Amino acid sequence: MPKANAFYAQSGGVTAVINATACGVLETARAHRDRIGKVYAGRNGIIGALTEELIDTSRESRSAIAGLRSTPSGAFGSCRYKLKSFEENEREYRRLIDVFKAHDIRFFFYNGGGDSQDTANKVSQLGDQLGFPLTCIGIPKTVDNDLPLTDTCPGFGSVAKYVAVSTREAALDVASMCETSTKVFVLEVMGRHAGWIAAAGALAQEAPGDAPHIILLPEVPFEKAKFLRKVKDVVTAKGYCVVVVSEGAQYRNGTFVADAGGKDAFGHTQLGGVAPTIAQMIKDRHGYKYHWAVADYLQRAARHIASKTDVDQAYAVGRAAVEFALAGKDKVMPTIVRTSDSPYRWKIGAAKLSRVANVERKMPKSYITKDGFGITAKGKRYLAPLIAGEDYPAFRNGVPQYVRLKNELVKKKLKPFKV
Amino acid sequence: MPKANAFYAQSGGVTAVINATACGVLETARAHRDRIGKVYAGRNGIIGALTEELIDTSRESRSAIAGLRSTPSGAFGSCRYKLKSFEENEREYRRLIDVFKAHDIRFFFYNGGGDSQDTANKVSQLGDQLGFPLTCIGIPKTVDNDLPLTDTCPGFGSVAKYVAVSTREAALDVASMCETSTKVFVLEVMGRHAGWIAAAGALAQEAPGDAPHIILLPEVPFEKAKFLRKVKDVVTAKGYCVVVVSEGAQYRNGTFVADAGGKDAFGHTQLGGVAPTIAQMIKDRHGYKYHWAVADYLQRAARHIASKTDVDQAYAVGRAAVEFALAGKDKVMPTIVRTSDSPYRWKIGAAKLSRVANVERKMPKSYITKDGFGITAKGKRYLAPLIAGEDYPAFRNGVPQYVRLKNELVKKKLKPFKV
Repeated sequence: MPKANAFYAQSGGVTAVINATACGVLETARAHRDRIGKVYAGRNGIIGALTEELIDTSRESRSAIAGLRSTPSGAFGSCRYKLKSFEENEREYRRLIDVFKAHDIRFFFYNGGGDSQDTANKVSQLGDQLGFPLTCIGIPKTVDNDLPLTDTCPGFGSVAKYVAVSTREAALDVASMCETSTKVFVLEVMGRHAGWIAAAGALAQEAPGDAPHIILLPEVPFEKAKFLRKVKDVVTAKGYCVVVVSEGAQYRNGTFVADAGGKDAFGHTQLGGVAPTIAQMIKDRHGYKYHWAVADYLQRAARHIASKTDVDQAYAVGRAAVEFALAGKDKVMPTIVRTSDSPYRWKIGAAKLSRVANVERKMPKSYITKDGFGITAKGKRYLAPLIAGEDYPAFRNGVPQYVRLKNELVKKKLKPFKV
Repeated sequence: MPKANAFYAQSGGVTAVINATACGVLETARAHRDRIGKVYAGRNGIIGALTEELIDTSRESRSAIAGLRSTPSGAFGSCRYKLKSFEENEREYRRLIDVFKAHDIRFFFYNGGGDSQDTANKVSQLGDQLGFPLTCIGIPKTVDNDLPLTDTCPGFGSVAKYVAVSTREAALDVASMCETSTKVFVLEVMGRHAGWIAAAGALAQEAPGDAPHIILLPEVPFEKAKFLRKVKDVVTAKGYCVVVVSEGAQYRNGTFVADAGGKDAFGHTQLGGVAPTIAQMIKDRHGYKYHWAVADYLQRAARHIASKTDVDQAYAVGRAAVEFALAGKDKVMPTIVRTSDSPYRWKIGAAKLSRVANVERKMPKSYITKDGFGITAKGKRYLAPLIAGEDYPAFRNGVPQYVRLKNELVKKKLKPFKV
């Protein structure tokens, strides 16, 4: 295979460690200049490929690239842009091939969730059909931890650690004040479809009965009366109650608990998320003073408290992607394979993109306690190693030093394309 | 002065470093066993003194006491319980003296905000009147940073660091996605009466124009139209806008922005805080996709990202309190005195309790930019050293190891007292 350029894009919601993956891709590619020419990154993800806005990563210094390992968010920009099916929008897929041809791009690295793996697979197939063979490697990334065939998804371990740490800290706060102040604290975390992130709250527990006392998962239909009874039982026994709730918590009929509050007096949809909604339920029934927090982007951007395991794995899948490509692999995604729980050991594996695409991995029932409000020992055994280790960024003046890239664009060669 | 016991209590909202102060008090007292017998801590603060629920800290190991330095929240319990004026409730003040007499307590260390300093002062005066002289030392603590006569208040630096770090991280997230997703991010932070905490968001800025682009302070009346224009200007220029808003943001007439939304369709007070309220305003006017976060207790409990300066100062005021008492000082509070901005230098000073009590320190006008949406260079010069340095707790299994005390109570000697 002659030397050619590569294209790398970040896709979907960013994480604390997706740039660590970029770092793995770029450092490994630079170590193989005989085979890979320049690595172009899509400005704002795949949109950059469609609009021919290609960032020339060769203009970035070695230290800037190294700094990506400890910089959260997407350094080249990311996007929520799903290519339609090939039949519906062949034009976009053909455009990608045109851009790749124009810039002598023969390697395509797509760093994202399930949709992105699907796109990478289709682009690869089209390249084959059009006689422009591309090496297409998907690279896993999602805080949602819902990709199949990999033990975990880079990005998840760090948000899980953030939730475990924050829950432990806030619970101590509530415990020390509950005699005369707040009795119920509710922390809302991400996870619209699966409860992996909320489940990680259970790692805050050290001894039986520790906070969080209740975890509300999308996998377990929300039953208001049962929940309110449980809150009362906990407050009666402990003096306070800490709840971690997934934004995706829902009633049996599929209505999100967050959406069930209706409109306010001005006809606006209620502003709050699920945390204020259930906090108010508790207040209305039991009268307990409450506080609630919504972590939102803070949780997935919190590189300052990233999991070392997660950072290492994020870097490793980036490096493996390039190594796979150089070894002639195609239409695959590097995966994390767990070889031992304790001590935790893992290695890199590979999964076919066709098998990854559009499969959502739910949390196993065996990870959820019988009453639906907690995580079993088995679930914790799975989760615990993923948050292990700290990997602090450098600080200056009290705040983390995150790199900013130059992000210089390559000169366009094609006509404009409307996305 | 013959050897006697001491009483220590934590008061009001807890912080990431109030236990570091406790550590300073206890370690210093233990180093002077010839003068100070046992240190009793109030279970749940001053309430513990009233109810004679005294924790015998001599039962805690040396390593447990040392661990307090890196454990957030109030290890002995705290309370929001303000003693009424002496005239209104002399009974409570006399009870304190009775309990102190019964347990040979001659040193009173009260660790809290302005109200607590006032209480310590009154108790001291009463002791004098009743011929039971007590040495009363107030110890500063408040995330609100609103005590007078001290350069800063232990607890503030760490919450300030949390806000600066979180704002920088979340802003990177928004910046990388704004082309196709969220354009406005709003972070709500504490500070009902003063904007110190929100102001700390400005420390996330590295270069002019960096996030946060807008800071909403209680000190600056909220003008909706002006604010919405500014948001639009920022989004037009930058592609996104990050807002840090104090929970105490208010209209000119004193109505909190958070309360201005009225009731929902069920007659409940609107659930959300100020963040969802202003996010919705922006959506209604400009249609921008938004996200918001409410940090709530996470910010003041976040020992994992505490400011080293703050931890050092929290310990130092605890140590100084005991040293003051042993030196025969009375009715005073150790303060932080800044002797140099750059390099930052500080030392311990002393303020009379009578001058600290019930004085609220507002943010100087000179710290706020002319348009009311930002912090001046002068303000940042004041704030920056307070968040400097990291002081990570020990971790085990991916989560911080915080100590739990035995908190064994001393046998009661008096009749029950109803609080």
